[in-house]
Amino acid sequence: MVQQTMSGATRATDEEEALHFLETIFSTPDLGVLALESKCRRFCDHYTSLSADDRISFLTVLAKQYGVNQGAVVQVATSVVNAQEREALLLMTEERLRHTLIPQYQQLFSKIGRIEGGVKFLVDMRADILTHLPGAQSEEYKAHMRILQQTIRDLLALWFSVGFLHLQRITWQSPCDMVQKISMYEAVHPIRDMNDLKRRVGSYRRCFVFTHRSMPGEPVVVLHTALTNSISSSIHSILKTPTFSGSKMETDSSNDGDVDEKEDPNKISAAIFYSITSTQKGLQGVDLGNYLIKTVVKEVQNEFKGITQFSSLSPIPGFKTWLITEINRIIHMQEIGEQHPELLLEKEIEVLRNALSIPDHSVLKTLKDLVQTHGWIQNESISEMIKGILLRLCGRYLFIEKRRGFALNPVANFHLGNGAVLWRLNWKADMSMRGINQSCGMMVNYRYYLENTEENSQKYLENQTITASPDFLQLVENGK
Amino acid sequence: MVQQTMSGATRATDEEEALHFLETIFSTPDLGVLALESKCRRFCDHYTSLSADDRISFLTVLAKQYGVNQGAVVQVATSVVNAQEREALLLMTEERLRHTLIPQYQQLFSKIGRIEGGVKFLVDMRADILTHLPGAQSEEYKAHMRILQQTIRDLLALWFSVGFLHLQRITWQSPCDMVQKISMYEAVHPIRDMNDLKRRVGSYRRCFVFTHRSMPGEPVVVLHTALTNSISSSIHSILKTPTFSGSKMETDSSNDGDVDEKEDPNKISAAIFYSITSTQKGLQGVDLGNYLIKTVVKEVQNEFKGITQFSSLSPIPGFKTWLITEINRIIHMQEIGEQHPELLLEKEIEVLRNALSIPDHSVLKTLKDLVQTHGWIQNESISEMIKGILLRLCGRYLFIEKRRGFALNPVANFHLGNGAVLWRLNWKADMSMRGINQSCGMMVNYRYYLENTEENSQKYLENQTITASPDFLQLVENGK
Amino acid sequence: MVQQTMSGATRATDEEEALHFLETIFSTPDLGVLALESKCRRFCDHYTSLSADDRISFLTVLAKQYGVNQGAVVQVATSVVNAQEREALLLMTEERLRHTLIPQYQQLFSKIGRIEGGVKFLVDMRADILTHLPGAQSEEYKAHMRILQQTIRDLLALWFSVGFLHLQRITWQSPCDMVQKISMYEAVHPIRDMNDLKRRVGSYRRCFVFTHRSMPGEPVVVLHTALTNSISSSIHSILKTPTFSGSKMETDSSNDGDVDEKEDPNKISAAIFYSITSTQKGLQGVDLGNYLIKTVVKEVQNEFKGITQFSSLSPIPGFKTWLITEINRIIHMQEIGEQHPELLLEKEIEVLRNALSIPDHSVLKTLKDLVQTHGWIQNESISEMIKGILLRLCGRYLFIEKRRGFALNPVANFHLGNGAVLWRLNWKADMSMRGINQSCGMMVNYRYYLENTEENSQKYLENQTITASPDFLQLVENGK
Amino acid sequence: MVQQTMSGATRATDEEEALHFLETIFSTPDLGVLALESKCRRFCDHYTSLSADDRISFLTVLAKQYGVNQGAVVQVATSVVNAQEREALLLMTEERLRHTLIPQYQQLFSKIGRIEGGVKFLVDMRADILTHLPGAQSEEYKAHMRILQQTIRDLLALWFSVGFLHLQRITWQSPCDMVQKISMYEAVHPIRDMNDLKRRVGSYRRCFVFTHRSMPGEPVVVLHTALTNSISSSIHSILKTPTFSGSKMETDSSNDGDVDEKEDPNKISAAIFYSITSTQKGLQGVDLGNYLIKTVVKEVQNEFKGITQFSSLSPIPGFKTWLITEINRIIHMQEIGEQHPELLLEKEIEVLRNALSIPDHSVLKTLKDLVQTHGWIQNESISEMIKGILLRLCGRYLFIEKRRGFALNPVANFHLGNGAVLWRLNWKADMSMRGINQSCGMMVNYRYYLENTEENSQKYLENQTITASPDFLQLVENGK
Repeated sequence: MVQQTMSGATRATDEEEALHFLETIFSTPDLGVLALESKCRRFCDHYTSLSADDRISFLTVLAKQYGVNQGAVVQVATSVVNAQEREALLLMTEERLRHTLIPQYQQLFSKIGRIEGGVKFLVDMRADILTHLPGAQSEEYKAHMRILQQTIRDLLALWFSVGFLHLQRITWQSPCDMVQKISMYEAVHPIRDMNDLKRRVGSYRRCFVFTHRSMPGEPVVVLHTALTNSISSSIHSILKTPTFSGSKMETDSSNDGDVDEKEDPNKISAAIFYSITSTQKGLQGVDLGNYLIKTVVKEVQNEFKGITQFSSLSPIPGFKTWLITEINRIIHMQEIGEQHPELLLEKEIEVLRNALSIPDHSVLKTLKDLVQTHGWIQNESISEMIKGILLRLCGRYLFIEKRRGFALNPVANFHLGNGAVLWRLNWKADMSMRGINQSCGMMVNYRYYLENTEENSQKYLENQTITASPDFLQLVENGK
Repeated sequence: MVQQTMSGATRATDEEEALHFLETIFSTPDLGVLALESKCRRFCDHYTSLSADDRISFLTVLAKQYGVNQGAVVQVATSVVNAQEREALLLMTEERLRHTLIPQYQQLFSKIGRIEGGVKFLVDMRADILTHLPGAQSEEYKAHMRILQQTIRDLLALWFSVGFLHLQRITWQSPCDMVQKISMYEAVHPIRDMNDLKRRVGSYRRCFVFTHRSMPGEPVVVLHTALTNSISSSIHSILKTPTFSGSKMETDSSNDGDVDEKEDPNKISAAIFYSITSTQKGLQGVDLGNYLIKTVVKEVQNEFKGITQFSSLSPIPGFKTWLITEINRIIHMQEIGEQHPELLLEKEIEVLRNALSIPDHSVLKTLKDLVQTHGWIQNESISEMIKGILLRLCGRYLFIEKRRGFALNPVANFHLGNGAVLWRLNWKADMSMRGINQSCGMMVNYRYYLENTEENSQKYLENQTITASPDFLQLVENGK
Repeated sequence: MVQQTMSGATRATDEEEALHFLETIFSTPDLGVLALESKCRRFCDHYTSLSADDRISFLTVLAKQYGVNQGAVVQVATSVVNAQEREALLLMTEERLRHTLIPQYQQLFSKIGRIEGGVKFLVDMRADILTHLPGAQSEEYKAHMRILQQTIRDLLALWFSVGFLHLQRITWQSPCDMVQKISMYEAVHPIRDMNDLKRRVGSYRRCFVFTHRSMPGEPVVVLHTALTNSISSSIHSILKTPTFSGSKMETDSSNDGDVDEKEDPNKISAAIFYSITSTQKGLQGVDLGNYLIKTVVKEVQNEFKGITQFSSLSPIPGFKTWLITEINRIIHMQEIGEQHPELLLEKEIEVLRNALSIPDHSVLKTLKDLVQTHGWIQNESISEMIKGILLRLCGRYLFIEKRRGFALNPVANFHLGNGAVLWRLNWKADMSMRGINQSCGMMVNYRYYLENTEENSQKYLENQTITASPDFLQLVENGK
Repeated sequence: MVQQTMSGATRATDEEEALHFLETIFSTPDLGVLALESKCRRFCDHYTSLSADDRISFLTVLAKQYGVNQGAVVQVATSVVNAQEREALLLMTEERLRHTLIPQYQQLFSKIGRIEGGVKFLVDMRADILTHLPGAQSEEYKAHMRILQQTIRDLLALWFSVGFLHLQRITWQSPCDMVQKISMYEAVHPIRDMNDLKRRVGSYRRCFVFTHRSMPGEPVVVLHTALTNSISSSIHSILKTPTFSGSKMETDSSNDGDVDEKEDPNKISAAIFYSITSTQKGLQGVDLGNYLIKTVVKEVQNEFKGITQFSSLSPIPGFKTWLITEINRIIHMQEIGEQHPELLLEKEIEVLRNALSIPDHSVLKTLKDLVQTHGWIQNESISEMIKGILLRLCGRYLFIEKRRGFALNPVANFHLGNGAVLWRLNWKADMSMRGINQSCGMMVNYRYYLENTEENSQKYLENQTITASPDFLQLVENGK
């Protein structure tokens, strides 16, 4: 296998083999249900048996040779142009054009979706493409591959329509198999042991998944929800985890009774979405998570009339990295004497300078060191001093930093697109190593005001307008 | 409503209203999950509330105004033609062209499929189009409508992939609701009463349905199977129905024990598919029935290792009508002295002439009268005499008469396409009024030899070659 | 079989055969699980294969020969008497005595309960005994048979503990098999057709059954409940049945929307138990019905918080028969000049006399005729006149007539024992032939005030005190 | 609590309190379903809230004061004696006597069985009695308590009839809750981790449980079965466990493929019951395990027609303890010069003497040391030498050592009572610490020849005849 990737010659051979195999697939006409099915199965088995590298060769040939017949397209397009004056003829020619533009492999894929395990096969094949694509070189190659993966995506989008997804609550009574998968897939707040697992599906918790008919026993999206008496400001009160530092754990006011005890509906007035996971890379770009949140809101409202508050408690991946990068950038600009924006407010600089007895020009560097070395955690007074600064900067990161007009932070982008509001930033909310490394221990609540969700979603998606709570706005503007 | 259909003016008004409504649907951008969902729901509710006539107006506007933007198509097609020399540009322009060719309503329909009841809505709306289409006048109008219904069909074909269908056996233990629907939908051999219904889902019977996630509790296709000790030659041994004539019922050798008793696996060596029904007109053209047969074969084989014979016992709708038409045509040709093919063999003419003491030139007319008046039933000797003639003619009807190269008889076309063999024609196999009127009481077995099914299916679909048993071939050629 | 019952000699032979068979059962020691099970199965199969008469012979031998060994009892009883001074010895001897007093067949029955179908066998065998017992002649024979049936009853009472019963709601989604049985067993208000059946398990209705593990698919008790907006005064509003007379149907204020429509919780404030059926004669004396009512009350309360009224709408079987008998008795006493109680109040006699222009001494006779011939129904004014009289007499029948201190009417006895209150008597509440024949068309509500149920039940069972509503009491005392 | 157990005075007080409480339970008449239920609930709640010591006081009072009224018994027994000449009177008086002999608490217990959780309560209360009983002092006290526990046992025996038990296969798809309990209850071969657990319910394994309606989610008996190609001679091949010693693991010929892979029916010809656990101490004496084996045999036969061999692979708890005790006893007899049986055969003594170079009189002592210190394991040659001796002694232990005529070893007694055959003794079959400590690493197969099971069971239970295979008999008689 190693040789293959090292020599163009060998690669060419792989492509020849792929070409040869694909000819046997595409050359025969599509007749007979059974013939078709065995052909599909042959295709899947062949692909599955290939090594990672051979798969790329295979996909390359598939994308280039069995996409659209370009000569035919040009020809029919010409006919369309010529027919433009005669409507009936135009309609007919358009119809031909539409068929000509359908990649050859699309037909095959739609048949593969019909066989057992076929949908999962396409999901996995698309995951291969998505994994490989960013590293590809040629633009033309990329164009072919993009059409290939979009063709699959469009099919998957139709198949993963919400009507075809099955909402399932996972409890300690659910099949072991499913519960174990929930445990395995949990990426946001990793599950430590059996007791931890039991707690996440236990009382005062609702763990919901979407499953799909064609991938039985496989949770496609997972949503963990905590039922509390107020909007949680710390993940530790939900997960009962110890904090990283030896310092006393801040117990959250939303502490909601022991998860093993019988639920008391009177203690439940808030639903906190504290982890949402899409398990299939191959379903990237097929919206599922927002449907799950929407569906769970209905489910939970139905069960507890007393729930009036819906909010996430979300991680802020990327904040620390962004902050360090910003500081580096400004230090660099300072060094080369370029004009640069101010990252810190005057009053913040003063606070740091006085507290740490350092000169003005060291302030940014010192802040960077504190953040990088986690030096602020051990010392309670430094921690208190830096709190306001990090909160404001993180608020700014979430509210102001953009990518193509939308929130830079992907979690923010997800919830804002769903119509949530940037509601509250929480200090020392996730003091696990992971939380500290991602976002200096901060977490954020995206709150869902059900009556405004639709409007907020529209505003964000249409005009990129982020709705934030007054407190959040004040934090971003003046610090706290 | 009556006035509306009588006056073009009113119709125009209906179309204006439809136009007005559809503008509210299509003018706003497709943003936000909730907005989208409520838009879909509005569309469905509106359409459902319309009268039959208003629906046609509505569909007309939809098909014409919210299909493909033809100007845009011509424009992009021109760009494609111009880009033919530069591959990268060509690929990109093609991509644009593909998008331009997607009817506007397709996007909406794919979203409608996501909402609860949405798939069923599209199935029903397509049924409306299919019902209306044959009566429509203008070619252009028909072209628009055909694109509309094909767009829906393509979506439905993806959604009704077999992986998404759920096979369910129906028994007397199944929900009443479902059993009642089975009863209601049974069109081939109508169900008479509770006992009859109980028998069809009782012992020595297997009633299977496909249901679909998006249409819960609704059987999409129904397949009734009898488990017998040989291939049944009469529906009466399966349904325990009395024959129409007062004459003694022929009891079939495949008599299979009382359906109420416990099944004895030793008595079971054949599975007879005696009724298959697709319940949704809106799914016309989406192959489901053959998948059901294929799946049921597996299911039944799994349950009874001893089953070695699989066959249908099928009605022959259209034979009598075809026969009368043929006779009329020939008589007419005789009258005007035109040359014409011979319907009857010389020996058959002789038999009829001698038996009924009629002149040669009255033979066809007399045959027609006998068939039309059912005169052959009452008289045992006439019945015996005519038997061979009708069997041969019916065999010829099934084997030789074609439409676009394929079997004229739709049931034959269905089973032959699935890879079955024209196996045996059965005399006095369905002596109900219905059976006599359709096919002079004859039924046919399409037999499935599992090891050849695929090959037969290919041969039929590719070359229109019908595989028939030696006995059947002999019957067609020489009479019996 | 006929000969057997006609000749004592043959009967003796039957008993000899029974004796012979039972020896093979009881002579071998009870060792080994499998041996035991096959013995039990042999017993059941043998009994089941017997004719009705042979069963009686069989049961006779079983009861007499395989009950308690009386000699042994007397012997051990003597030992007990002798041991009365020495406690340890006394305890031991008592233990022996207890064992001696257990009928031999009890051990066998308890084993039979363990095999599949065994419990149902015992239920059915006890039904045979109960059917036969009343006709038996000899006291000694009766004593033996009573011990036999009580032994079975005691076992069944343990097995039909409520913890072992499974509450199941029956809907149109339930297995056809079960729904058909519900239909078959309905004795109080017979079910007319599929639509009627669908209505009884449809919306605004709750049909619950108890099933038992050892009798799967068999409803042991059935309770039909209507959900209404007030306590129903007529069965016609629940069953949508036409009344017997051609007269206009009184529509009940509790009319509760169409049973096919979606339930509106706001329209539901009362639960009316309108039919309760025990399906197993062999479970006579094993209380199940009251548990079912109790369980259903909980179930319904849980579903509809808005339900505040619980009541039966019950038939009054036996009222008409009782009334005719009473009138006959008094007329007879009048004729022989004996002193007799007055059935009618002075004012009632006056009303009848005036209205019908008859002499005083014909009043009772005329009343009897009207009731027997249903003459009061056709004539609206007679109907109105007689209404008050029949209501008062029926109230008296329910409230005052007793058997061993408890209410004579079995339905009344059942509900009063459960703690219900005699609440309201309803005129023209069941104008079916059945209702008119049983109780001149009247029905009664036994109302359950949940907070007093326990107290009422105690009072009735302990002191035979019937609790009635003020209106009911006034009706009984003064007429209305 | 400590004080209470230390002072008789306090104990007396506890009993007074119990007496006081029980008066409130038993003094009021048993009327009204609701009153009764609340009384039962009060009884259960009270008992459950008591400390271990208070429970004993409570049970003491219950057994003595609310058992049988002894005065009444003597009195009615006298009546019986007097009535012996008159049959009708005798029957009636017997009936009274039977009622008088029913302990008062029995009625209460049978009602407790009716309430939710009531059966489990009685199971647990009986477990308390059984735990306490062996330590009790007074004979009279014991007699009372025995009647109490037997009364409960008799009720439980009726309720735990097999017809009321539900057989359930446990797989990795079963509820987590249930699988975790299986893990927790496994006492024979403790479960090490998730993977081990998954294997025990995975492929080539069948884990079955009985559950009971009144104790939902609680496995009452658990049976682990391995599906293999021959009768397993080692638990390690089933559990894939490492052996205790560092020596090479003996891989069993019954190695049956990886448990994660798809089962190949062709590899399956034997079902090995390798662990059976009753989870409820309070159900001691209520036979359940044999029913489970019998039921599982049917289940497994149904699934795999190819299975022809059924056998346990059982531990031999008590062998090592018995052996040490025997040796000690004989050594002691030798020391005091008493005549004693010979434990070892002459040839065995010789073998040991020669191999270890020890004098004759040290042989037993040395054998004891080797067994106690596990010295034989480390040294392969000693292990080989001692193998034959230990196999013969263990064979003798199982076959010859008795308690009240039945096999001394409880596992042997269980399987022999079920009709199994002492089939094969296996060396180094369980080399875990546990296995070595119990039985020097040996395990035994009790084989079930289905056609003889019933006969074997009878022979054993009736005449205490143990059926053994020829090989086993030879082993016991001559060593191997």
